[in-house]
Amino acid sequence: MAPRYAPSLRSRLAPLLLLLQIGFIVIYAVYIEVLTHLLSLYYLLSFAEFQDVNVMVILGFGFLGTFLVRYGYSATGFNLLVAVMATQWAVILNGIESWYYRGKIRADLRSLVVAEMCAASALISIGALLGKTNPVHLVLIALLEVSGFVLNQWLLQTLLKVPAANSIMLLHIFGAFFGLALTWILFRKGSLQPFEKEKFDRQAGLFSMLGSVFLWMFWPSFNSVLVDHRSPWRKLGAVCSTYLALAVSAVTAAAVSMLSSPKGKLNPVHMQSFILAGGVAVGVSMSAVHQPWEAMTIGFTAAVLSTIVSRYLKTHMLLAFECHDTSALLSTHGLPGLLGWLAHLLLQIKACDDPTVAVRFAVFHICSLLITISLSLSMGIITGLLLKWNFWRPPQDNKCFDDQAFWEVGNQNFVFLKTNVELNIILSLHRKDQIS
Amino acid sequence: MAPRYAPSLRSRLAPLLLLLQIGFIVIYAVYIEVLTHLLSLYYLLSFAEFQDVNVMVILGFGFLGTFLVRYGYSATGFNLLVAVMATQWAVILNGIESWYYRGKIRADLRSLVVAEMCAASALISIGALLGKTNPVHLVLIALLEVSGFVLNQWLLQTLLKVPAANSIMLLHIFGAFFGLALTWILFRKGSLQPFEKEKFDRQAGLFSMLGSVFLWMFWPSFNSVLVDHRSPWRKLGAVCSTYLALAVSAVTAAAVSMLSSPKGKLNPVHMQSFILAGGVAVGVSMSAVHQPWEAMTIGFTAAVLSTIVSRYLKTHMLLAFECHDTSALLSTHGLPGLLGWLAHLLLQIKACDDPTVAVRFAVFHICSLLITISLSLSMGIITGLLLKWNFWRPPQDNKCFDDQAFWEVGNQNFVFLKTNVELNIILSLHRKDQIS
Amino acid sequence: MAPRYAPSLRSRLAPLLLLLQIGFIVIYAVYIEVLTHLLSLYYLLSFAEFQDVNVMVILGFGFLGTFLVRYGYSATGFNLLVAVMATQWAVILNGIESWYYRGKIRADLRSLVVAEMCAASALISIGALLGKTNPVHLVLIALLEVSGFVLNQWLLQTLLKVPAANSIMLLHIFGAFFGLALTWILFRKGSLQPFEKEKFDRQAGLFSMLGSVFLWMFWPSFNSVLVDHRSPWRKLGAVCSTYLALAVSAVTAAAVSMLSSPKGKLNPVHMQSFILAGGVAVGVSMSAVHQPWEAMTIGFTAAVLSTIVSRYLKTHMLLAFECHDTSALLSTHGLPGLLGWLAHLLLQIKACDDPTVAVRFAVFHICSLLITISLSLSMGIITGLLLKWNFWRPPQDNKCFDDQAFWEVGNQNFVFLKTNVELNIILSLHRKDQIS
Repeated sequence: MAPRYAPSLRSRLAPLLLLLQIGFIVIYAVYIEVLTHLLSLYYLLSFAEFQDVNVMVILGFGFLGTFLVRYGYSATGFNLLVAVMATQWAVILNGIESWYYRGKIRADLRSLVVAEMCAASALISIGALLGKTNPVHLVLIALLEVSGFVLNQWLLQTLLKVPAANSIMLLHIFGAFFGLALTWILFRKGSLQPFEKEKFDRQAGLFSMLGSVFLWMFWPSFNSVLVDHRSPWRKLGAVCSTYLALAVSAVTAAAVSMLSSPKGKLNPVHMQSFILAGGVAVGVSMSAVHQPWEAMTIGFTAAVLSTIVSRYLKTHMLLAFECHDTSALLSTHGLPGLLGWLAHLLLQIKACDDPTVAVRFAVFHICSLLITISLSLSMGIITGLLLKWNFWRPPQDNKCFDDQAFWEVGNQNFVFLKTNVELNIILSLHRKDQIS
Repeated sequence: MAPRYAPSLRSRLAPLLLLLQIGFIVIYAVYIEVLTHLLSLYYLLSFAEFQDVNVMVILGFGFLGTFLVRYGYSATGFNLLVAVMATQWAVILNGIESWYYRGKIRADLRSLVVAEMCAASALISIGALLGKTNPVHLVLIALLEVSGFVLNQWLLQTLLKVPAANSIMLLHIFGAFFGLALTWILFRKGSLQPFEKEKFDRQAGLFSMLGSVFLWMFWPSFNSVLVDHRSPWRKLGAVCSTYLALAVSAVTAAAVSMLSSPKGKLNPVHMQSFILAGGVAVGVSMSAVHQPWEAMTIGFTAAVLSTIVSRYLKTHMLLAFECHDTSALLSTHGLPGLLGWLAHLLLQIKACDDPTVAVRFAVFHICSLLITISLSLSMGIITGLLLKWNFWRPPQDNKCFDDQAFWEVGNQNFVFLKTNVELNIILSLHRKDQIS
Repeated sequence: MAPRYAPSLRSRLAPLLLLLQIGFIVIYAVYIEVLTHLLSLYYLLSFAEFQDVNVMVILGFGFLGTFLVRYGYSATGFNLLVAVMATQWAVILNGIESWYYRGKIRADLRSLVVAEMCAASALISIGALLGKTNPVHLVLIALLEVSGFVLNQWLLQTLLKVPAANSIMLLHIFGAFFGLALTWILFRKGSLQPFEKEKFDRQAGLFSMLGSVFLWMFWPSFNSVLVDHRSPWRKLGAVCSTYLALAVSAVTAAAVSMLSSPKGKLNPVHMQSFILAGGVAVGVSMSAVHQPWEAMTIGFTAAVLSTIVSRYLKTHMLLAFECHDTSALLSTHGLPGLLGWLAHLLLQIKACDDPTVAVRFAVFHICSLLITISLSLSMGIITGLLLKWNFWRPPQDNKCFDDQAFWEVGNQNFVFLKTNVELNIILSLHRKDQIS
């Protein structure tokens, strides 16, 4: 039966959203400045890229989550909510340094793009919790995850002089480990047996395929957006490399999924998630990839790794580590991200003539991974402990994976656009007016 | 039962479409000229924007209308038909002045973009009548609405010297009031009780969410497309402002929808329509918005207004004003449009140092609104009276909101790609041939 | 009942894919070089166009095929697989000449775009066989079709000096005739009566409409992508012409579909396929189209031809020519392509002042068509004979048009994300551990 009332929304989510939103407007009013002098033509080119990243964040991640059969509205609607909250918050956080030195935060299209990439790292984390939380949780997770991610970037750039583009690309690793720590803390005994509604059907699967295809198609923009326009050959190289890595990982994920299936068939979830593994891996190692075959090899390895781990490890992870990872976060973002990090290390060492430079790079590179993983895990654990507080009213087990807990949809999935009962009352009043 | 025959289509729509289409081709053959001299690089940039506006008009508006459970083909298919007819017609109308002076109408990518925006204003009007008309009505409405809108633009530009970009952005106000007047004239007693098929289900809702998300994502292009490329900082400013206004209105619409719901839940229709309110409002006031917080405040107010009005006024509007507004036109486009107009007025006055200039602007601005509203209402009423003519064969009440009235789809929603009966006849003939 | 085992996948498709993919990576490692010197700004502009072609190939063709009610995963998933295999293969084949002279194949964004267009010609062919083959067949068809198409281009460019852009645009004709020859060879007696699952329903129809709308929206990019950036007015002219031809063919296809229907209704399949006829026809004749009305007339004629042929000829083609054309290949790509070829001939002759030049052009133009058709038909027949080999394990008649033959989806269309049986076993082990 549909719950009659959504306790977590009216008394928790709505005030939180309004409060934060008004707070953001005030901060923007006081501290944000916009550029009004002449920009070069290159800036106009960034518009199409902003659009592509926007499509990935809003449409791609939103519809990818619709694979749960009774959770389509929540997946798309809450994704939009969380993405825009996280983006607004990330613009502020990314500008803190500039605020410290100049008293103002600059907002232009590039800062929005960077903020959307920070939001993407939060959306990745949220994938692991899909369906088992209420939207208040999601908003809090997003804000804390983005804060942690921006802190991580700042640490890497300040302590280890990691270039901005490289540190942002660690979003896959940070998001995945944050999400895994979180889902470990928030583990429910109930999830040891399958949730009644944690299933998908053909229609939901096609919507999810749509989201996945959009991510696949626009991933080249995502990986190349931070490459400087003034070196166009590097930018276009990033596009080609990402396309080839994605192509190879689509083919490889399909082949390995068939080989590892007991019936020799393809798994729809593998085809939706692991065709993206190449994009993740090559994104993390982008600044060291110069030849197409390097990108292709990375894509090949990432897809093999993801598909095999997902096939053989998912159930064990649930039991051994008490980690219920709804949307295969570890194999879609975590492992390909680590693989990309490794590929970056190897390619960079290969390219170094001087062994001392190579060793120095390796030490810095390993340190940046260690910082990222420890920060993401600890932030994930802190966030998880905060969310365990019953004040946020987590959904009961039988309300998980169900739109009815949060949306005005009927039990039969039908909604009349005019409510019968209401209307009949008003109609009778209306008729009385006419008679009298 | 599915109607056996669609009287309005073969004898009315098909000849009308062929006649108009051949007429358009003849007019284009005689009067249109294309540019063949060298264009600047800036023109190439306009291509991506044309594409974005095209996506909004064809995909966004088309799929937004699929929320009606048995009306998906009509919503998308008729939207395409109406959009391309209106665009072709608008290119001609927009070129009349140039034809008068030079004997030729210029057609390039920019004139197509402007024509598509005129078509968008017709598609907005049509939203109010979704499901209650036949496609002959829709084509006639589109042509008359576009004519009225172009006339309105011409009046504003000639009498009040309103800049072209500003007068086009009044499309939301013009479209909404035209549609409301039309639906008032075409009011049916039958719509006092809910139409049997005026409902939506989960799948239809997700398709509609898809359309809504596409409108949301590409709205920054829609608002910035008419800003001149030679001032890139203004163009990118328009993109940022629109994104921020949309982000704020998504958050606010969700919060207000929850607060105003008796069960404290989110309404899917609110999440689909009112997340766009900020884009409408900031579009109308675009030329006066310079700071991000101004755009955000406009987005906040627009979303509050839309959601509250929709929650408390919709049923009353149906009864008191006999106005059956299928897709919440008043709250999605009408009120945010008026709010944007007001914001434009206030911001412009605030920016004026000289009170006489401010008063002069205010008078002109109020006049342009009065002209727009009176022209849209009167054109709507005229169009409505024309459509009341039974010659156009309006659908009966029990055929409303149903694809079966117009499309070759079976009762069980299944269509075999080869007809059984036909095929058996031919097959038996075929077998006879082989025997003899 | 769902088949328990997919014989063609694990033992045929997976090794084939892995072998080919590793082979491609090796070839790319040895022979591909990338540009690393400074490119002009124009190259950056090509990025948005690459994205649009990518959307058409992956999303457009993929979702267009989802109209079959139980074949959605296969349509989208196999389309992705085939497209990326064909693209990688086409990059190699297109570079053979450069490899012969310089020892290296150049790969940049432009060569990826050209390769994607070659892949599109393979995807067109595959449309005719949708649902009646296994994916091993599809991959083989794609590789052979692309080889034939590249050979055809080389012949036309070498023997007849046809410009590259024109010879690539013959992809519609080549793809259609290749597909028809193939489906003629692979004809099954079983298809004389309707396959049980060759039907569509409302939801599948909307997904298919989505694919069709994406093709419609991005077709202007497809037709203009090969026009040189250094003549922007020609590029934007191609965009406008294609848009107008598509607009006219949408209107005309709807009108003719209604006029030719026994019940006077619209056919959803016509609205999905034949609104594209204008884009096909004007693409083939693009280099000779200079005025909007020419494009519009070509669009008008193409839509009339396609719709009428489809309405009256489809069943006869099945019986007379034993050619079972699932997705109306002949009327969507074949005839509009031929019409575009004819329009090109007539427009070019009209533009010639000198009759000897006109005759010379006509002879060359007719020869290029004859070469294309004979090569496509003979390659199609050869491919068909190869695929008849039972080694590839074609699906049985009752497994046609069904995802269950290839995908891990249950009979009730539901899939639990965690398998019950597996999980219970592990759970009981887990509990024992805790007890002991």
